[in-house]
Amino acid sequence: MTTAEPILLTPGPLTTSNRTRQAMMVDWGSWDDRFNALTASVCSQLLAILHGTDSHHCVPLQGSGTFAVEAAIGTLVPRNGKVLVLINGAYGKRLAKICEVLGRDFSTFETAEDQPTTAADVDRLLRADTAITHVALIHCETSTGILNPLPEIAQVVKDHGKRLIIDAMSSFGALPIDAREVPFDALIAASGKCLEGVPGMGFVFAEKQALAAAQGNCHSLAMDLFDQHSYMVKTGQWRFTPPTHVVAALHEALLQYAEEGGLPARHQRYADNCQALLDGMAALGLRSFLPAEIQAPIIVTFHAPQDARYQFKDFYERVKAKGFILYPGKLTQVETFRVGCIGHVDATGMQAAVTAIAQTLQDMHVLEPAGAGLSAITGDAVLL
Amino acid sequence: MTTAEPILLTPGPLTTSNRTRQAMMVDWGSWDDRFNALTASVCSQLLAILHGTDSHHCVPLQGSGTFAVEAAIGTLVPRNGKVLVLINGAYGKRLAKICEVLGRDFSTFETAEDQPTTAADVDRLLRADTAITHVALIHCETSTGILNPLPEIAQVVKDHGKRLIIDAMSSFGALPIDAREVPFDALIAASGKCLEGVPGMGFVFAEKQALAAAQGNCHSLAMDLFDQHSYMVKTGQWRFTPPTHVVAALHEALLQYAEEGGLPARHQRYADNCQALLDGMAALGLRSFLPAEIQAPIIVTFHAPQDARYQFKDFYERVKAKGFILYPGKLTQVETFRVGCIGHVDATGMQAAVTAIAQTLQDMHVLEPAGAGLSAITGDAVLL
Ligand SMILES: Cc1ncc(COP(=O)(O)O)c(C=O)c1O
Ligand SMILES: Cc1ncc(COP(=O)(O)O)c(C=O)c1O
Repeated sequence: MTTAEPILLTPGPLTTSNRTRQAMMVDWGSWDDRFNALTASVCSQLLAILHGTDSHHCVPLQGSGTFAVEAAIGTLVPRNGKVLVLINGAYGKRLAKICEVLGRDFSTFETAEDQPTTAADVDRLLRADTAITHVALIHCETSTGILNPLPEIAQVVKDHGKRLIIDAMSSFGALPIDAREVPFDALIAASGKCLEGVPGMGFVFAEKQALAAAQGNCHSLAMDLFDQHSYMVKTGQWRFTPPTHVVAALHEALLQYAEEGGLPARHQRYADNCQALLDGMAALGLRSFLPAEIQAPIIVTFHAPQDARYQFKDFYERVKAKGFILYPGKLTQVETFRVGCIGHVDATGMQAAVTAIAQTLQDMHVLEPAGAGLSAITGDAVLL
Repeated sequence: MTTAEPILLTPGPLTTSNRTRQAMMVDWGSWDDRFNALTASVCSQLLAILHGTDSHHCVPLQGSGTFAVEAAIGTLVPRNGKVLVLINGAYGKRLAKICEVLGRDFSTFETAEDQPTTAADVDRLLRADTAITHVALIHCETSTGILNPLPEIAQVVKDHGKRLIIDAMSSFGALPIDAREVPFDALIAASGKCLEGVPGMGFVFAEKQALAAAQGNCHSLAMDLFDQHSYMVKTGQWRFTPPTHVVAALHEALLQYAEEGGLPARHQRYADNCQALLDGMAALGLRSFLPAEIQAPIIVTFHAPQDARYQFKDFYERVKAKGFILYPGKLTQVETFRVGCIGHVDATGMQAAVTAIAQTLQDMHVLEPAGAGLSAITGDAVLL
């Protein structure tokens, strides 16, 4: 694997393969059959990953992941619907904000950032408020890396006869979700996350009947997934100019995904990355924020070193100079930083990142004399 | 110039330079200073092209051009505003549709597709309905290639104390627009048109005071240009994940734009392309739809040959096999096809396209025995 330096240990945009980026070297006509075939292939590959070919449509959408989340809420929640938004981090809050801006009635249920929402919570909330029509959930809440128990929550929502909308932005493609077993109206993800494409488009898996019933719901022309889908069925084309190079890159990334071994292989590589990271950082004396049981192998939040000489900005720049881009923390109460486990990188790469972090902390005279951990890390790890 | 085949003679996506595509070979961190500098540079270069640095902000937006148009209407027209939409083609109709979906009050004024809206029309309409707060106009209506008289209309709108919103998607960067002389609240364009970037982002030039007054107007979270701009001012970052590779390609395309000689040179090249195309096609006996005075040097609509052996789909595939991608017509009344003059191509390339068209019509036995034209075209033209 060759990659452009530095390695992005961020939850998207992330490091892509050279082959994926090479797919952007061609200009595609958005009206052309060959490009339409590319779009169709992307959608059917995505549906296959989800086991959703029979039950769901894949509706791609221009823009970032948030555009697709907003489009899903706007299209699939009727104007007189009511959404229960489950929150344990920034992306859950954003879901609630979307409902507010779109004028959809909603209520929120918020747990601490290290506390998954439980199916029992959802059961209780749905009993208490029968006006709720839809439940909206973040699968892996990227602001910490916490995993919410999707299958259990989906079952409870279904038992109540309600509809589920899942933001699986940072988990789709890496964590198993089987549409034959997990009932939902919409699941949202994007090109530049665990599929290792480049950013620029999202997609919504919309349950076929729910989408068919959604005409006229949407608050927006550009984000209307009913229209987007109808037009695509009729013409094979995107309704408005597609990000052709991003689509081509995603197509190429999906081919590599299949060659790697599909979801099980992708999951395993990220799990190995996460373990290598956790082990390496623990040896440095750096504590992760979440307990292992609720830590998704996507992104890990670490407590910042308790040392006056530590400043995130300085730390970030120094680690970057060694070839790795880290991510700031997103917690308001505690000082943290985050390290992504996803992208075109393997456990050896993660070890190299830990080495770079160790050397940086040494250079910054942070965590001395807890030198046992630091000196245990040697510098010969290399990137895949 | 080397380009990936075939040449796109379409109004975006279009043929980009190899150098522009090469800029996508790097993965950028969306949080990183170097990427923020890229975004800032893109915005300031765009403002300079418009001479709008003092008067306007440049607000980039993820998604296709339509997303940026919708964002401009949603953000800059207050919920109790009323928009007069000037229509002479499909993109004008789309503007009206956006107003309708967004629930903004609007009225329309439609002229024939070969009939520019005049300043006198606008003057009369604004006198007749003082409830109108905003006028929305397509500069170059890409569905035919017609140019509407922007400076004159802008002056009338200003004289009435009303605000102007300009969809300059297919003209910005090629046709001169000077913000110091042409008053407007918003002008919208995108990466993958006359700047010769790849598609995936739009941008709105928003008049500074109008944008400052626009908080809370927008119907959408993702498309709120007030929020997008405020966040960018505060952090240097895009509010949601940017299409990093598209931004990098636009940055590289803008450097080449400046090196070529900026707007005058880009305008001249496209004018030369358009002339070469018109001359070549006339020699083949193919008539353009618009009179020369109102034909923008962006895209040309041609009447389809009056011959039963002509089928657009067949014609398209044969010309494509010779290396050129044409564009279908967008008129409902007459059968037409379109040929773009924009993208990384010069007059020699346009002549080669005409040759390919000539040979194709010959192969299809269309237009025989009007052979004088056909035989006048020789096959040695090459691409730049
Ligand atoms: C769970 C989740 N939801 C939504 C988003 C928003 O996606 P974007 O930044 O592409 O708009 C992200 C981005 O990381 C995410 O992780
Ligand atoms: C004048 C005009 N407006 C709007 C658009 C829509 O842009 P997009 O297809 O990128 O959404 C176009 C696209 O060609 C256009 O030419």
